[in-house]
Amino acid sequence: MQPPASPVRLVDIVFPGDTNHHGTLFGGVALAHMDKVAFLAASRHGRASFVTASSQKIDFAQPARHGDIVEVTGRVVRVGTSSLDVEVELVAEAPVSGERRLCTRGRFTLVAVKGGGVRLPLPPVPAYDEEPADVLRMVDIVFPTQTSHYGTLYGGDALKMMGKAAFIASTRHARGVMVMAASDRIDFTSPIREGEMVELSAQVRMAGRSSVRIGVDLAAEDLLTGARRHAATALFTMVSVDGDGRATPFPGR
Amino acid sequence: MQPPASPVRLVDIVFPGDTNHHGTLFGGVALAHMDKVAFLAASRHGRASFVTASSQKIDFAQPARHGDIVEVTGRVVRVGTSSLDVEVELVAEAPVSGERRLCTRGRFTLVAVKGGGVRLPLPPVPAYDEEPADVLRMVDIVFPTQTSHYGTLYGGDALKMMGKAAFIASTRHARGVMVMAASDRIDFTSPIREGEMVELSAQVRMAGRSSVRIGVDLAAEDLLTGARRHAATALFTMVSVDGDGRATPFPGR
Amino acid sequence: MQPPASPVRLVDIVFPGDTNHHGTLFGGVALAHMDKVAFLAASRHGRASFVTASSQKIDFAQPARHGDIVEVTGRVVRVGTSSLDVEVELVAEAPVSGERRLCTRGRFTLVAVKGGGVRLPLPPVPAYDEEPADVLRMVDIVFPTQTSHYGTLYGGDALKMMGKAAFIASTRHARGVMVMAASDRIDFTSPIREGEMVELSAQVRMAGRSSVRIGVDLAAEDLLTGARRHAATALFTMVSVDGDGRATPFPGR
Repeated sequence: MQPPASPVRLVDIVFPGDTNHHGTLFGGVALAHMDKVAFLAASRHGRASFVTASSQKIDFAQPARHGDIVEVTGRVVRVGTSSLDVEVELVAEAPVSGERRLCTRGRFTLVAVKGGGVRLPLPPVPAYDEEPADVLRMVDIVFPTQTSHYGTLYGGDALKMMGKAAFIASTRHARGVMVMAASDRIDFTSPIREGEMVELSAQVRMAGRSSVRIGVDLAAEDLLTGARRHAATALFTMVSVDGDGRATPFPGR
Repeated sequence: MQPPASPVRLVDIVFPGDTNHHGTLFGGVALAHMDKVAFLAASRHGRASFVTASSQKIDFAQPARHGDIVEVTGRVVRVGTSSLDVEVELVAEAPVSGERRLCTRGRFTLVAVKGGGVRLPLPPVPAYDEEPADVLRMVDIVFPTQTSHYGTLYGGDALKMMGKAAFIASTRHARGVMVMAASDRIDFTSPIREGEMVELSAQVRMAGRSSVRIGVDLAAEDLLTGARRHAATALFTMVSVDGDGRATPFPGR
Repeated sequence: MQPPASPVRLVDIVFPGDTNHHGTLFGGVALAHMDKVAFLAASRHGRASFVTASSQKIDFAQPARHGDIVEVTGRVVRVGTSSLDVEVELVAEAPVSGERRLCTRGRFTLVAVKGGGVRLPLPPVPAYDEEPADVLRMVDIVFPTQTSHYGTLYGGDALKMMGKAAFIASTRHARGVMVMAASDRIDFTSPIREGEMVELSAQVRMAGRSSVRIGVDLAAEDLLTGARRHAATALFTMVSVDGDGRATPFPGR
């Protein structure tokens, strides 16, 4: 009944608004990322509403720097009747060198809120499969900007996330500074509802010497039922640029 | 019955949190801006709840840079029975030189959600009037920070937007680095409700050699009925400063 | 019946996204901070839903700079039957030198929205006690990221705020560039509801030559009833670092 488990992974970029004077990520922001991933991993496993009860001691071994890609991964490692533990690690990746550092790791305990059709005990600790390395998968919660009438949504946040996924996937392919050169036709097949989990998959479709086409799919997932549906597809052309913004071949090719 | 149509225009500043390593605006953020403008242009035209169905191919000809003013303008260019197309262009303007570059242009298809008193077919393609160039008009959607009791709102986001309008209008007048020196009495005549469209108008009221007074009006507009009401008025004194933050005459005067 | 009054104080850091080309805080952002504090001071005093009616003339005497700590303090200074005035001042503090500058001061008039058990006339102008200087107290409104089912919340925003409080308290103690080295076990004793006011208290628990442990408590307060409850406790180890990110003794010790 349970889908094959894959770890929940959030991928983001370290922006200047989240860094201190030395350009490294604030600890509180790292903790907030980690808690979000713990929440999503718990929800996906238990299909219940969870609240964070506590986090264990967390050491910050390495800083994440402005411009780094941060990858925050959560895995359920202990399950009780109505609570579970999620192990979360945060890895920083230098965009151009690709060097990766484990910055911090932590364990969060979350408790399922009873009621509303929640089935206890929670399912046992899952076995996790690793995904193929050639697809970038990243999750998030979307809080779509919403008008007060009929809950109508527009796609702005989804576009921003798809653009970010294309940026990260193309940076990993090219290890250069990438900019968006074109967006092909984008289709929104299904609106995303507030508070839903989204999962983005980004993959290289065609690669040249200085440009690469990245296909991005966006799926929406109801956290309680696990029902998934396709929400949008995009195809972006990303180009490697030099310091003056001119197209330049990928470094080292 | 339809008010005289003016294009929907969103004006913003490129902040470091929205740029890549080379200080240019992320493509995904540009797309999110464009979709928001498409949504507002569609709503204002059709007075219905719209969802984005697709965007056509979009080319990014020029980058927008950190500190640039970006102007995103949407015009309804095709209308079907229950769907329409909005042409959106994004122009970047260097704040001090005033140089403007068309960065990108795109076409978005939006569909009216049926129900709730929506009248179909949608009205025909409007003729757009250009506004007088001496008034800066900019729209946005306000999501006022809101307490859970009685939907009470406070004015923080409105103040932030009025300050931004004054910054942009004074920068265009003076072509220098402007800071706020004073805010006259501000009156909030009507609270803004969540999800409403707001339109800001900013205009030079009095200009000196190193300072300028900018009047800013904020109107709120119900997206479905088109009902508009005045929400707030402010008068800001903006001063041109040099690298040490001292008042300095406007460049080239 | 009224608790002993303490001024409402919001403490934040000036981030690059809120500054102009010269790295000083946008006036509109300062106004938004001030209005939020006026709202919280009014709510805590009157235990009613308030809307901002107007602000008096506000002069910006000094700029706040990127990296500064900003402290925005509000005190109720006039009370009518159903309206009141809050005097708000914004002080910027250079993180390393500790130098403080009064940047601006303003007076906001807020009106209590009638209905819902609001008791008028409002209580008289309170006498304010100053808090002990060795505890950093700061308030905010939390808009916890929330799923659509059962209003379940997760703790991300709370963690971010607790991390910020630890950063500010340790910076004030050490007057160096501080990074988080570890977070001890964090307990969330009570979830925070959307729109509640939170108050953080951060205090030095143990201080070494290059590191300091900061205890942070988070309390949630219902704006209308004034009911307070403990929400979370954390203990962070903050370390002073040099330009290469290596631990270094606190400056001047």
